[in-house]
Amino acid sequence: MMSVKELFDDYHLSWLDNSGDESDIVLSSRIRLARNFRQIPFPNRADFSQLAEVREMATSVLGEVETAAGEAFDQVSLEQLTDPEKKVLIEKHLISQNLIRNPQYRSVFVSQSRHCSIMVNEEDHLRIQCMVSGFNLETPYAMASKLDDVIESKLDIAFDEKMGYLTSCPTNLGTGLRASVMLHLPGLVFTRNIGGIINVSPQLGLAVRGLYGEGTDVIGNIFQISNQLTLGFTETGLIENLTSAVREIIAHERRARKALQLYTKERLEDEVWRAFGILKYARFLSDTEVLALASKVRLGIDMQLIDEAAPECFNELLVASQTNYLQNMAGNENLSNNEVDRKRAEIVRCILSGKSAREE
Amino acid sequence: MMSVKELFDDYHLSWLDNSGDESDIVLSSRIRLARNFRQIPFPNRADFSQLAEVREMATSVLGEVETAAGEAFDQVSLEQLTDPEKKVLIEKHLISQNLIRNPQYRSVFVSQSRHCSIMVNEEDHLRIQCMVSGFNLETPYAMASKLDDVIESKLDIAFDEKMGYLTSCPTNLGTGLRASVMLHLPGLVFTRNIGGIINVSPQLGLAVRGLYGEGTDVIGNIFQISNQLTLGFTETGLIENLTSAVREIIAHERRARKALQLYTKERLEDEVWRAFGILKYARFLSDTEVLALASKVRLGIDMQLIDEAAPECFNELLVASQTNYLQNMAGNENLSNNEVDRKRAEIVRCILSGKSAREE
Repeated sequence: MMSVKELFDDYHLSWLDNSGDESDIVLSSRIRLARNFRQIPFPNRADFSQLAEVREMATSVLGEVETAAGEAFDQVSLEQLTDPEKKVLIEKHLISQNLIRNPQYRSVFVSQSRHCSIMVNEEDHLRIQCMVSGFNLETPYAMASKLDDVIESKLDIAFDEKMGYLTSCPTNLGTGLRASVMLHLPGLVFTRNIGGIINVSPQLGLAVRGLYGEGTDVIGNIFQISNQLTLGFTETGLIENLTSAVREIIAHERRARKALQLYTKERLEDEVWRAFGILKYARFLSDTEVLALASKVRLGIDMQLIDEAAPECFNELLVASQTNYLQNMAGNENLSNNEVDRKRAEIVRCILSGKSAREE
Repeated sequence: MMSVKELFDDYHLSWLDNSGDESDIVLSSRIRLARNFRQIPFPNRADFSQLAEVREMATSVLGEVETAAGEAFDQVSLEQLTDPEKKVLIEKHLISQNLIRNPQYRSVFVSQSRHCSIMVNEEDHLRIQCMVSGFNLETPYAMASKLDDVIESKLDIAFDEKMGYLTSCPTNLGTGLRASVMLHLPGLVFTRNIGGIINVSPQLGLAVRGLYGEGTDVIGNIFQISNQLTLGFTETGLIENLTSAVREIIAHERRARKALQLYTKERLEDEVWRAFGILKYARFLSDTEVLALASKVRLGIDMQLIDEAAPECFNELLVASQTNYLQNMAGNENLSNNEVDRKRAEIVRCILSGKSAREE
């Protein structure tokens, strides 16, 4: 496990590093493919020997997957992780809540660049996901397809001529594809226009979720938007649909920011600087407060109202301010809320001052 | 008027410069003597020629007063001041509200060190006041007495063998003396023990008031405590009574701060640093917000929880954050609240960073 310590300790994520197109609004773009092996029950109905078989099959093709990806993957068996470690991987969006519910025979293969991860025995046998920073669904789709192609060339994947890829949950049937983008929409929130976006999304076949996906609260004005349907469309059709919807949302967000600039610039400037002052000096910070304040500071940076912080601080705080990350770094999963809030305030000061937490 | 521009522009006050005894709690000590000339009606019943006569008499002894004080006095005629200038003198505690109500034939003589001021034709013909930084009523009493002695040696002051000094308002009859101290009591406020002090004061013959005297709100956890009675006691008796009450209050405040240190140090530290962060970065600040935040920061400095600001910043902000001071500095008495709040935030940043506002 020594080689993957950085997987839990580093709050920098290459797919969330403020690079790429429209990265002042689109934090990251992600493609996920659901795949299952033919003749083996879906994980929720498979017994341990069948789950073990799935993991062996997945592991058997990892060499080819690495060659296709052009980089090595860390193999992480969920059974071997501590509780905070598992949760850090969720906080880093590398695995899902679902994967840790029953850790036995569950694994995740994470590429060393952290752009790709393959979950084994999640809801489906394989969940291939690729992520990049900024607004760009083509690259992660090409990456995920390449990994999928090499897996399908070696192993027998459940595919029906009429239905497409078979999946555990009917919402994934067909392409097994979920495309999603993580958006920072403070302009729409502060101008109270976000409701329109959320209400119209289902009609466009899109789902809007909070920072950690389905059923999670919106914090830090961060929204995840993804396609709801997977059946009856081609992969590129789904991606194009999401892409054009996101382009619209970006335009709305830019208009909202322009309106803020025109009508409430001074008050916004005050709020942004106050948020910065609190983040910089507070001794205790909750997770929701950090992201609410950091969202304002990030908006202030994007609108050139403030220059004392780097824009990528916001992206780093998305990982570094999370409770399990902090508990894991402290080596103590029983840290009190108070202690976590204090550690959080410490790392926030570190990140805002541009120092690496590990150098401290 | 050129020579007294500094009277309005400078937010440093020698009697409020954080020097002297117990200056972490007692901001300043003040003695005021009320005196009237025999045979001339009190100012509120005097006609213009009588008021003019009073001012002439007062002016005629100014040379002797200066010799006694060992320093020159600026003669400021209220008629010649702009509205903001008059109000700045109130904000600096050099004159009273009462003096500016009818400015005709009203004057104030202010010593160049600003430790002494003599109001002419306020409620009484003469109001001699002397102020020093910290807890020390003896020095200003000695100063005021010296000025009074030289005036009484030259002019005929209304004094009755039985009643003592005659004054316009019966509450000043007798000694004509009011002794007062300005206290910073955040410990008693935050531990909710201030009520006890306020409730017991009248029984001790003391009045508790806000930053600007009678009928003003408490802001910045600053309280003025003074003797209520002037008749039936000697001057030294009144001063001793106030001194011993203030010693008690200081002890209570120190106990309250110790309790905060023991029981809520961490949370207090967080509050203190947040207050500092907001003061340092906010773009708009109201007067009450500045003093509430500055009070926390000052407490933090006194309790050694924070070291990024100098203690005297608090004293300076008491003058520099006042609305009329800011309007006068801007040369515009019609500045909107918004503009004043912005100027206030600017000067707060200046003072916290240790720069002189006039150097900017």
